[in-house]
Amino acid sequence: MCQLMGMSANVPTDARFSFTGLVQRGGGTDIHRDGWGIVFYHGKGMQEFKDPDPGVDSEVAQLVKLHAIRSKTVISHIRHANVGDVNLENTHPFSRELWGQYWSFAHNGQLKDGAHLELPLGRYTPVGTTDSEHIFCWMLDQISRAFPFKPANPDMLWQGVASMADRLHNMGVSNFLLSDGQVLIAHCSNKLQWITRRAPFGEARLKDVAMTVDFAAETTPNDIVTVLATEPLTVGESWTAMEPGELIVFNEGEVCAHFKSLRRLL
Amino acid sequence: MCQLMGMSANVPTDARFSFTGLVQRGGGTDIHRDGWGIVFYHGKGMQEFKDPDPGVDSEVAQLVKLHAIRSKTVISHIRHANVGDVNLENTHPFSRELWGQYWSFAHNGQLKDGAHLELPLGRYTPVGTTDSEHIFCWMLDQISRAFPFKPANPDMLWQGVASMADRLHNMGVSNFLLSDGQVLIAHCSNKLQWITRRAPFGEARLKDVAMTVDFAAETTPNDIVTVLATEPLTVGESWTAMEPGELIVFNEGEVCAHFKSLRRLL
Repeated sequence: MCQLMGMSANVPTDARFSFTGLVQRGGGTDIHRDGWGIVFYHGKGMQEFKDPDPGVDSEVAQLVKLHAIRSKTVISHIRHANVGDVNLENTHPFSRELWGQYWSFAHNGQLKDGAHLELPLGRYTPVGTTDSEHIFCWMLDQISRAFPFKPANPDMLWQGVASMADRLHNMGVSNFLLSDGQVLIAHCSNKLQWITRRAPFGEARLKDVAMTVDFAAETTPNDIVTVLATEPLTVGESWTAMEPGELIVFNEGEVCAHFKSLRRLL
Repeated sequence: MCQLMGMSANVPTDARFSFTGLVQRGGGTDIHRDGWGIVFYHGKGMQEFKDPDPGVDSEVAQLVKLHAIRSKTVISHIRHANVGDVNLENTHPFSRELWGQYWSFAHNGQLKDGAHLELPLGRYTPVGTTDSEHIFCWMLDQISRAFPFKPANPDMLWQGVASMADRLHNMGVSNFLLSDGQVLIAHCSNKLQWITRRAPFGEARLKDVAMTVDFAAETTPNDIVTVLATEPLTVGESWTAMEPGELIVFNEGEVCAHFKSLRRLL
């Protein structure tokens, strides 16, 4: 199993604190030694850093930890490989363009053996051999078929993503983070937690590294910053565990849509 | 006008020497202050570093200069903006996936005013506002229409790219580097030079920075490394200037196909 980290904020925010905690699990405090990646959105553009080396040893991860990259939307992943070799093309997050926007996807879980092959592909083809990239290519192709152009009202789109997430949830374990650069969509199969920080800001201490941050000194009173992670990155704060089958759409740090698993409603 | 740098080699090769010379032109010895980017292929995977800040000041460029990233195929670009604002989404190289391969494109030149809008788009949509990204999306869409699947014999594909390059050459200035991760395709409208280094290797000195490298100490006798650049990066070596309308396909450091402008043959 891999670990996910995501951020959605209403102002460009430095994600180093969370990334430092996550990357420590890449071979330091945990077993996720099979590569890591992070995507930062800046307007419509995207900056991507990836390395098939363990996060804890990686020089590129070192740069990302030292360099204050401020972004409103971030997706990160550290990998413990189950399907697919350890190499760059199998390193999350995966990215593709649709409607002139870069979409990114990171995934934690595993479908039942070979089940991803039932998901038909179209205009997007996986470059690597992970089930995760196959799932992403399938989802984006389905979206592009349902919506040849970007829908003016995104509700139907999110409903469509929730319904695909539900199908995946029925095929095995599938926690994921998906972004079009504006919203951050989080789906929980069995493990995903989140926290929204807003004024009055307090202090937080990382769980995996001796590091404390005083958010009050780093933010303005209007900042709203949501962080998601497979497991809480900090101690002394109250994270919310998502329920199995739950999907939340975050925009500018706030929940803007919320779906429960259809399976649970039946 | 921007500056291009590309590398094609038969073994994973450290491109820092060439990159260091190029990046110096990003606000140091030249005016290309509007961002820079570099793509390294590793097998089917791709590592991309981009920054809308001047290369000479960029912390990310500093990392790329310090960190020995070895690759067989590299494309890099420093930008002096003419069409499109200075921001991340307008920073070259641009990338898209086709046939399960990441394609990358960097461009130097300018078509006649608004001429790129005559080039119809299809499955790929520009994220930014440069004519360069529009050209790339058009080219890849044309390729995907002509070849829904990757052709077993690439000759027809390269012929198709040469014919598109010729059309662009007739619409203005269009020097470009294009790669599918395996081959590096170089087209010259007015400015592109290349050099192939092979045994016996000698020394070279950068033009833009006080830096010398003894390639004999860095290579094995079987290495073949071709470097392309808008203008020679070194002194004391003999670079070959491409002719207007010329297109060369490099594979593993060697020329594997060569096209002259149709216009010149008429």
